[in-house]
Amino acid sequence: MKWNELHNEACPVARGLSVIGDRWTMLVIRDCFLGIRRFEQMQQRLGITRHVLTDRLRKLEADGVLRREAYQERPTRYEYRLTDKGKSLYPVLVTLIHWADTHVPADGGSSVALLSRETDALIAPKLVDHATGSEITHRTVRAVTRE
Amino acid sequence: MKWNELHNEACPVARGLSVIGDRWTMLVIRDCFLGIRRFEQMQQRLGITRHVLTDRLRKLEADGVLRREAYQERPTRYEYRLTDKGKSLYPVLVTLIHWADTHVPADGGSSVALLSRETDALIAPKLVDHATGSEITHRTVRAVTRE
Repeated sequence: MKWNELHNEACPVARGLSVIGDRWTMLVIRDCFLGIRRFEQMQQRLGITRHVLTDRLRKLEADGVLRREAYQERPTRYEYRLTDKGKSLYPVLVTLIHWADTHVPADGGSSVALLSRETDALIAPKLVDHATGSEITHRTVRAVTRE
Repeated sequence: MKWNELHNEACPVARGLSVIGDRWTMLVIRDCFLGIRRFEQMQQRLGITRHVLTDRLRKLEADGVLRREAYQERPTRYEYRLTDKGKSLYPVLVTLIHWADTHVPADGGSSVALLSRETDALIAPKLVDHATGSEITHRTVRAVTRE
């Protein structure tokens, strides 16, 4: 297996990582969900080189996770917005946040709280089966693989 | 922000990625969930160098995601098992699988199906709020950040 060929793998974990598995990519996507849309803002927040950020944004655009939109003419400047494919990553981000806040706690507490837009109540995520509502854990679900 | 210092960040996405965000790491964890426990098997499946696999396994052990257990004496040989902290990554893996199978489909179809252990029915994951059962999407939940 080569990292740059993961998109050809039958395994969905490999295919998913071919899009979001590079260093910094999930942090770029996090910023997009927080409404950070412009290159300079992202670069300042992440503290990575222009080269790396440019590479990640181009790849996310090519993969259909972000789309680029002009927000200014002369000179033309662009901002980045999540596509529907990108917005569908929200559950991946939320389960990662929940796991980290549970198992990799920060000394000063977490910087993020998830609130219901309707009630402002704190949200605690749980993964369930769509049809039955049963919780999905490694004890209730098994993966069957075809190699 | 430096990649090797993500574990110090207040942001849970950064802290989560400090543990699972390196190349190949989620594929190692995937294999562990599939019952692949031994170094040689993992190396053969992933096709990565011994050096890289050793590095990832050591880090996952140091971070408390895997534990190493001797399965043979003279010479002592070890296998790797998920700790409770590691098993708690199951929802992250399942949401990633679901996203990839929906948005990054494979030509020959997916290699993984998720089945209920109780009924053998196909599982379709949905992320909901623990208390209310409402589905969690970027439209129903907002993230409030403290910087």
